[in-house]
Parts: sequence; C-alpha cells; structure tokens
Amino acid sequence: MKKFRDDRNWKQFHNPKDMALSLSLEAAEVLEHFQWKNGAEIEAYIETHKRDVGEELSDVLYWVLLMSHDLGIDVVKAFEEKMKKNEEKYPIEKAKDKHTKYKEL
Amino acid sequence: MKKFRDDRNWKQFHNPKDMALSLSLEAAEVLEHFQWKNGAEIEAYIETHKRDVGEELSDVLYWVLLMSHDLGIDVVKAFEEKMKKNEEKYPIEKAKDKHTKYKEL
Amino acid sequence: MKKFRDDRNWKQFHNPKDMALSLSLEAAEVLEHFQWKNGAEIEAYIETHKRDVGEELSDVLYWVLLMSHDLGIDVVKAFEEKMKKNEEKYPIEKAKDKHTKYKEL
Amino acid sequence: MKKFRDDRNWKQFHNPKDMALSLSLEAAEVLEHFQWKNGAEIEAYIETHKRDVGEELSDVLYWVLLMSHDLGIDVVKAFEEKMKKNEEKYPIEKAKDKHTKYKEL
Repeated sequence: MKKFRDDRNWKQFHNPKDMALSLSLEAAEVLEHFQWKNGAEIEAYIETHKRDVGEELSDVLYWVLLMSHDLGIDVVKAFEEKMKKNEEKYPIEKAKDKHTKYKEL
Repeated sequence: MKKFRDDRNWKQFHNPKDMALSLSLEAAEVLEHFQWKNGAEIEAYIETHKRDVGEELSDVLYWVLLMSHDLGIDVVKAFEEKMKKNEEKYPIEKAKDKHTKYKEL
Repeated sequence: MKKFRDDRNWKQFHNPKDMALSLSLEAAEVLEHFQWKNGAEIEAYIETHKRDVGEELSDVLYWVLLMSHDLGIDVVKAFEEKMKKNEEKYPIEKAKDKHTKYKEL
Repeated sequence: MKKFRDDRNWKQFHNPKDMALSLSLEAAEVLEHFQWKNGAEIEAYIETHKRDVGEELSDVLYWVLLMSHDLGIDVVKAFEEKMKKNEEKYPIEKAKDKHTKYKEL
C-alpha cells in the first residue's frame, strides 16, 4: 500500500482532510450499488456483482488503513477499544432486538 | 464482532442497504473532524484527538468487515486484487506526481 | 443568509472544498433519520419528526444556495438546464417504470 | 419536476430512505469536484467547470425539493425557521470569527 503510493509520489496529496474526503466518497460508491433496489433485487444483484462490491469495500478499507498509518493510529488497537466501548454503550439487556441509538436507549 | 451482534440479536436489521448506509454515515463522522480546519489546525487537532479519530475509523472498519462477511466477500483477497488493479489503472510513469483520475490520465 | 454569515464574519471559512464537505455532512444527517427503519417505521417516524427532517433538509438547501452564490452559479437557471438534460438522458419510452441509470438504459 | 417523475412513473421508487440516500450520493458528487485540489487549483477549476458544478448542485436541489414535497414539508417555511434557530444557536458575539460548533461555543 505504501509502496504503491511512494512509487507514484502521492504522499504530497494525502493531507488528512482530503483522505477523509476520499474515504467518504468511496463509502458513497459502496452505497450507490444498493440505490433504488428492494430486498430481492439486492440479493440477486449481489450474486452477480460480488466482485464489484468487494472492490468498493476495498477502496474504503484502503483509506481506513492509510489514514490510520499517516495519523499514527494503531487501527487494530483502536478497533478493539471501540468494540469494548460499544459493548458498554449498548448493554445486551437494553439493546437486544432494538435498533435504537445508545443515547435513546 | 459477530458475537457482539449475536448477543444483541441485531442481524435482523443488517440488510445490505442499511449496512452500506451506515458505512457512509460513519465515514461522514470521520470527515466531520476536519471540517473548516486548515492544515495547521488539523495538525494540532490530531495531536489531541487521535483517540476520537481512531474510534471513527474503527466504526468505518466495522462495517467494511461486517458487510464483507455477510455478503460472502473475502475482503483480504478483494483488497489484494484491487491493489493490483490500481497498479494497472495508475501506471507509475503516467500517474507520478499527479492527482488526476485514471480516466483522464 | 448572507447577512447571517456577514454578521458572524464567516466568509473567511467558506472555501469551496469546505462548503462542499459541509453539504455532504448535512446530507448525511438527513440520511441518518432513515437508518435501520423499515417502510412502516419510516412512515410513523415522519409523522412525528417532520420538523426535524425539515431542518436537516434546510441545512442542505443552505449550502446549495450559498455555494451557488459564492461560485457565481445561477442555481435556478442551472436547475432548469439540468432538468432538460435529464429529460434527454432518460427518454420516457426507455426509462418508464425502471430505476436503471441512464448509462445502462 | 413532478411531471418529469410522473411521465416516467418513478414515484414507485421514491421511498424516503432511497430519496435520502440519493440526496447523499449527489452531495458526494459535488464534493468529488474538489477532491485533492488546493485553493489555487480549485479557483482555476471553477472557472472552467462552473456548469458541471451547477449541474451537481441542481441534482442535490432536486432531492431537497422532491423529498420536501413527498414528506409534506414546506421547505421555504422550514428554511426560514432553521435560519432563525441558527441565529440563536450562533449568537454574533460568541460565534464571530469562529468555526466552532454551537455545542462548544
């Protein structure tokens, strides 16, 4: 990932704001695959477009990893900590079977 | 990650459209940290908010991993394939020092 | 709108990139209202949250209008031209009853 | 706008979630125009791409207006109310020359 960037001398463009912006644009590209489709259409679509969706998810992952690297964030550790925090924000007995935000639980 | 979800019985809500939508919303939360700030402000901000940004990036990563799992996508393999594809879309000699999209290279 | 901004001396922050970023963040706030909810839940939600959704849509509208103003775009004219273009991109006989993108029609 | 939709019989697809999703995707398309560009590049870009940016802003406006219509929201009234609310959330004496969110003012 870093070699890919260094070979192209792209670090000069990778300021945090533009990287976050790119992350957001790639997430929109994932979302676009599901626009206007109902449940059955989405199921059929995924069967035939798994590779395309996988590519878009990879683009999102790329920016998660590269941003974490550049900002000095240990993303594995951050992820584990966030999961612990989520377990506290969403206690099983309160959150079970609900899609309510933690503030409203 | 799956245990967290199963304990809360949340799979019932996790259709692809809403997961992609959530991915997009979490990416927006990363982006919000950099809104209105210039380069120097962002640098100072990251020093004091590394943990917060790491949490938001973890939320994005959570949906990348969970979506990949649910849609039957091997995200590590997808990522490697996408990196190869990017190397072809952005040949070093053409892409070096440019932030141009591959279609316009 | 301009008086609101001038009273606060905020034009200094309103570069195109940050305005577009803000537009995107406000659109995400509209979207968040519908996250995880199914059709019936959304219908009930709108009944009780019409004002909230209206506020978020207003925030999006705010940036559409302010960006247009700052970039020297006549948004009414641009809108009329885009509607005409859409009529050509989506001819009735081809587009009727389909949610297909024009490239694939 | 409504005639455009009715001619194509598209109301069947326009549930609130997909409309909000579309609003968000169109806002991302506005944002994409400014990705990776610095201040001077953006200024030059706008000179030559005013029509393109105007089209994307029109697409955002389209969904603001159509969503408002379908959800029974008077968007002009909502906008005026939101501007009043913003004036209270951001009092001039506190907000002047600052890009701080109202919660942190």
